Amino acid sequence: MSIIDLLPSETPIKAFPPGEVVFTQGDPGGVMFVVIEGEIDVLLDGKLIETVRSGSVFGEMALIDACPRSATAISRTRCLLSPIDEMRFQDLIVREPEFALMVMRILARRLRRMDVAH
Amino acid sequence: MSIIDLLPSETPIKAFPPGEVVFTQGDPGGVMFVVIEGEIDVLLDGKLIETVRSGSVFGEMALIDACPRSATAISRTRCLLSPIDEMRFQDLIVREPEFALMVMRILARRLRRMDVAH
Repeated sequence: MSIIDLLPSETPIKAFPPGEVVFTQGDPGGVMFVVIEGEIDVLLDGKLIETVRSGSVFGEMALIDACPRSATAISRTRCLLSPIDEMRFQDLIVREPEFALMVMRILARRLRRMDVAH
Repeated sequence: MSIIDLLPSETPIKAFPPGEVVFTQGDPGGVMFVVIEGEIDVLLDGKLIETVRSGSVFGEMALIDACPRSATAISRTRCLLSPIDEMRFQDLIVREPEFALMVMRILARRLRRMDVAH
């Protein structure tokens, strides 16, 4: 099962052409994105740190802790993204506890990768 | 509100004297800990990366992604810790969605710190 399967059917979906900036490091947060289709490059200080693919999420940190964007996200290919704002996020956690676990797993995997790079 | 307030009253609590190893980097995971009282030092390859205090958690990564311990945890002072195994963890997420958000906030804060150190 993927995060995509947990999204309610009324979830909005936005299309992005390749090379479009989804958000920029330092921007205010408030929304995370589920990648439905395509690939997103995540850059920290201009350096590529991760390419996020279908079934994963990005931008969750600024949503969770209400701090500015810690990185920049740019579409590498044409993308379909589902934006999840705070209300939708909290609603998903209550309705689908598995969603919370999946987001935690993604955060833990990113932390491990940072630890290794550290 | 702190994570401690969300723990059910029947939650077990273990006491640790100062200087006791709670777990060692590379150990199998399976349990995270809520710090009820005291301070825990978290070491990565022998280097102190964080001191975890009352109301926060540690050891959550190996619980969430079922990988070996990414760091070593040693009590800096006398500690009271509440061990949370996977069943209890999933149960808490379902019963107290705020618990999931708090754990995510802790993971996000750690990731931001790693990003900065990166």
